[in-house]
Amino acid sequence: MNTLKERILQDGCCLEGGVLKVDSFINHQIDASLMMEIAKEFAKRFEDTKIDKVITIEASGIAPAIMVASLLGVPMLFAKKKVPSTMNGILKSEVFSFTKSRSYNICISGEFLKKDEKCLFIDDFLANGNAALGMLDLATQAGAEIVGMGFIIEKAFQSGGKLLRDKGIHVESLAIIESLENCKIKFK
Amino acid sequence: MNTLKERILQDGCCLEGGVLKVDSFINHQIDASLMMEIAKEFAKRFEDTKIDKVITIEASGIAPAIMVASLLGVPMLFAKKKVPSTMNGILKSEVFSFTKSRSYNICISGEFLKKDEKCLFIDDFLANGNAALGMLDLATQAGAEIVGMGFIIEKAFQSGGKLLRDKGIHVESLAIIESLENCKIKFK
Repeated sequence: MNTLKERILQDGCCLEGGVLKVDSFINHQIDASLMMEIAKEFAKRFEDTKIDKVITIEASGIAPAIMVASLLGVPMLFAKKKVPSTMNGILKSEVFSFTKSRSYNICISGEFLKKDEKCLFIDDFLANGNAALGMLDLATQAGAEIVGMGFIIEKAFQSGGKLLRDKGIHVESLAIIESLENCKIKFK
Repeated sequence: MNTLKERILQDGCCLEGGVLKVDSFINHQIDASLMMEIAKEFAKRFEDTKIDKVITIEASGIAPAIMVASLLGVPMLFAKKKVPSTMNGILKSEVFSFTKSRSYNICISGEFLKKDEKCLFIDDFLANGNAALGMLDLATQAGAEIVGMGFIIEKAFQSGGKLLRDKGIHVESLAIIESLENCKIKFK
């Protein structure tokens, strides 16, 4: 997706340790027009897949996920990182974050993920794939099926993309970064 | 907004202590079509107001806020509840949550809220107004102006609505709940 790649080159910041900062247009301040283009691209890439629900994890996944859900005409469900006191039938999974060097739980209410429901997982970044694996675990617990995963940015120099594709999951990433070496953004 | 009120009566759950649970369609699982209708209604109610940016707080505010921003053709900025290690020029404010009986910080990067920028704050609930006041504090620190606040659901039996309107803020709430006494939802 060229508009996205150009924007990453223009406004993305490459920090030490393979961190790509896109908080001026993707995951803190959000360019709503670009996000709509991103959502349309996801909808196009999964147009041949039957999807009952779009799922994501708070907070950065919510904006792209709700727009994709709106385009597909299906509900969206986001996993929470804190267990709300009023949640029923909680399903939980532990996710290890390499960026933050700590584990956190993600949870959903089992009421909203049904057996055999076909889900599209949407998120901002794919790096080591731990968040995606956590979501896959939640879906498995619920008996639901993840029929696709869409990421705005994939870091191909980390292992998540290979790991998910090796499991046979249909993964689509809109901008694939081959390297951030010497703080230079290089696309695949 | 009648569609919303009917949906609250149909799928909302009233719990002890004045809690209204709408997690099947508003703030956990989200009905994307309804959320788009909600966003259109906000856009309509603020059509005579000049708006440079839509602002909200993670996580429940993000879905309505990004849709409103998309309709208005402006960027969206969401305040975070944890300070990211890579954030520049952090502005912080403390918010007390009555529901959770504890305080938390909200923060934004000062880069993304500029002097004299006209902001519309969007959130799912207005109860005691503490989150809204926190956001007002952040905007004040940045020298930005909050020109309106839109809430999906306002609990008129709590003090937030009066407090914000008494400050001269243009507040729009799409469903105003007068009482949840005896676990019965009564609209104003």
